[in-house]
Amino acid sequence: MKKLINRPESVLADSLRGLAAAHPELRVDLERRVVYRAEPKAAGKVGLVSGGGTGHEPLHGGYVGPGMLDAAVAGEVFTSPTPDQIAAALGAVGTGAGVLQIVKNYTGDVMNFEMAAELAAAESGVEVETVIVADDVAVEDSTFTAGRRGVGTTVLLEKIVGAAAEEGQDLASVAGLARRVVNNGRSMGLALTSSTVPAAGKPTFQLEEGEIEVGIGIHGEPGRERRPIAPASELARLLVDPVLADLDFTAGPVIALLNGMGATPLIELHLMYGEVAALLDAAGVQVARRLVGNYITSLDMAGCSLTLLRVDDELLRLWDAPVVTPGLRWGA
Amino acid sequence: MKKLINRPESVLADSLRGLAAAHPELRVDLERRVVYRAEPKAAGKVGLVSGGGTGHEPLHGGYVGPGMLDAAVAGEVFTSPTPDQIAAALGAVGTGAGVLQIVKNYTGDVMNFEMAAELAAAESGVEVETVIVADDVAVEDSTFTAGRRGVGTTVLLEKIVGAAAEEGQDLASVAGLARRVVNNGRSMGLALTSSTVPAAGKPTFQLEEGEIEVGIGIHGEPGRERRPIAPASELARLLVDPVLADLDFTAGPVIALLNGMGATPLIELHLMYGEVAALLDAAGVQVARRLVGNYITSLDMAGCSLTLLRVDDELLRLWDAPVVTPGLRWGA
Repeated sequence: MKKLINRPESVLADSLRGLAAAHPELRVDLERRVVYRAEPKAAGKVGLVSGGGTGHEPLHGGYVGPGMLDAAVAGEVFTSPTPDQIAAALGAVGTGAGVLQIVKNYTGDVMNFEMAAELAAAESGVEVETVIVADDVAVEDSTFTAGRRGVGTTVLLEKIVGAAAEEGQDLASVAGLARRVVNNGRSMGLALTSSTVPAAGKPTFQLEEGEIEVGIGIHGEPGRERRPIAPASELARLLVDPVLADLDFTAGPVIALLNGMGATPLIELHLMYGEVAALLDAAGVQVARRLVGNYITSLDMAGCSLTLLRVDDELLRLWDAPVVTPGLRWGA
Repeated sequence: MKKLINRPESVLADSLRGLAAAHPELRVDLERRVVYRAEPKAAGKVGLVSGGGTGHEPLHGGYVGPGMLDAAVAGEVFTSPTPDQIAAALGAVGTGAGVLQIVKNYTGDVMNFEMAAELAAAESGVEVETVIVADDVAVEDSTFTAGRRGVGTTVLLEKIVGAAAEEGQDLASVAGLARRVVNNGRSMGLALTSSTVPAAGKPTFQLEEGEIEVGIGIHGEPGRERRPIAPASELARLLVDPVLADLDFTAGPVIALLNGMGATPLIELHLMYGEVAALLDAAGVQVARRLVGNYITSLDMAGCSLTLLRVDDELLRLWDAPVVTPGLRWGA
């Protein structure tokens, strides 16, 4: 294992310290491992909290800032944060107009965020709504999941509900909007290599030379099949076809996210997006906005995923609203 | 070699097509392989052109847009663009107030950009100034270079002179500013793995398990030494010490860029930046702005580089000015 780290045990603490040094506009609680905005949102607006295991950067800490999250709670690598960490974040940002917590559908996360919501309600009287993202069409259940896994739609969701909370929508509307996004987003990924969890010191799984895993999860959970690598135009089909088969994306505009898994350079992501865009065009899907880059990663895994989200004028307006975070920034 | 590509021969064309699909705000001339703004800058302002071999994305195509470049000329992977490609770009954007071309110090690039400037002057009467970036302190001469190699300072330069051109400074001032940036920027990099050029099909060089190359170039050119990997805190010293030894960075504020080489995930870049920031602080260097991420890459190489640039109020003002490109975006 060759990584830019000090010791496997200190990766989370050290990387949070680096995030804080790189982004003075964030306030990092190094003890609780929660990333906040240095300048909190105006009181009386709905708070937004997300979090999960570390290793998916810029998710979630990189999405804290005006127009997106108020707090991101970091667990150890690929491990849910604990209920008391999450409850601290909920208490810190949810005292005004309540808080929506955004949870990716993994068993540990769902359990700990639910417990945290109860804790925060009991300790600080915070009203908490929860939305669970389960958008990965690859498999119905998985190593860490009952039901589908939560992946790329999370990024789009955090942006869209972030805009709604910023403009002062109340908790019921923000939570309703979040569910609308969840119902309209679908994802599918593939891996060229495994990632290596620092504490394990070796790749989570082994792929042969020339072999890929289709339907991979962001923790290296098994997908649908292993098969030989093929030209990008064929690989694009392995992402586009299952997503389009799962939901009708031809009725109106969509936002497309072509996401890198961490170790795939932009030159390959651009190239893949070109292939994906051609297939979507041929299928009659109208891409209104697109995002190509590393947005929800899996440590040093090489590979990519596709997320499509059906949108209407309202969702597009919220998507286009200003956002100022390390991971997504425009309009301000 | 496992990559998201179709064929090694079509990587450049396919990735440019993907860039165009991902970014409708760019106009990509697929025949000449030049990336332009879809909406050109107002006439009468200095044009900015850069370019070089492909494989360093988002450099340079990802830095085309308001507040930064007007055109980026793409050569094949790690290969200079040809004089006629460059001359076409110079002619297209330089007819108003002349054009500054920004060239990284590699023998092929320097020769071809110089020839292009003569061609453009002869064919379109365009006045061309040239600035050459040679900021890598690792080695004095190298495989592709007489003198120092041009690396991370290029990104900071393109942003700063982009702002100056946007606000209407004339060619002499913009070129003078560019030389000021070049004189005040220094870089140093290290690699954990080689990159793999698609046409070669195998890594450019071999590192043993647990071995790194210190002073690596962005084409995999040899650096200063190979040594065993060490904790990030020690690796940070291998970047910071030679940069600080080469130029005094303690007299005023600096912009710091901690750059990923393409396959290193953000979690490791954050962590490294934390170590670098601590060393800079201890050395009395005052970091006024910082940038952490993949900005000038080397295909799928794992590793990172550090760039420091001495700045004053004027350079900081230009750095903070709005920029709207795929690779850098703020303030608009």
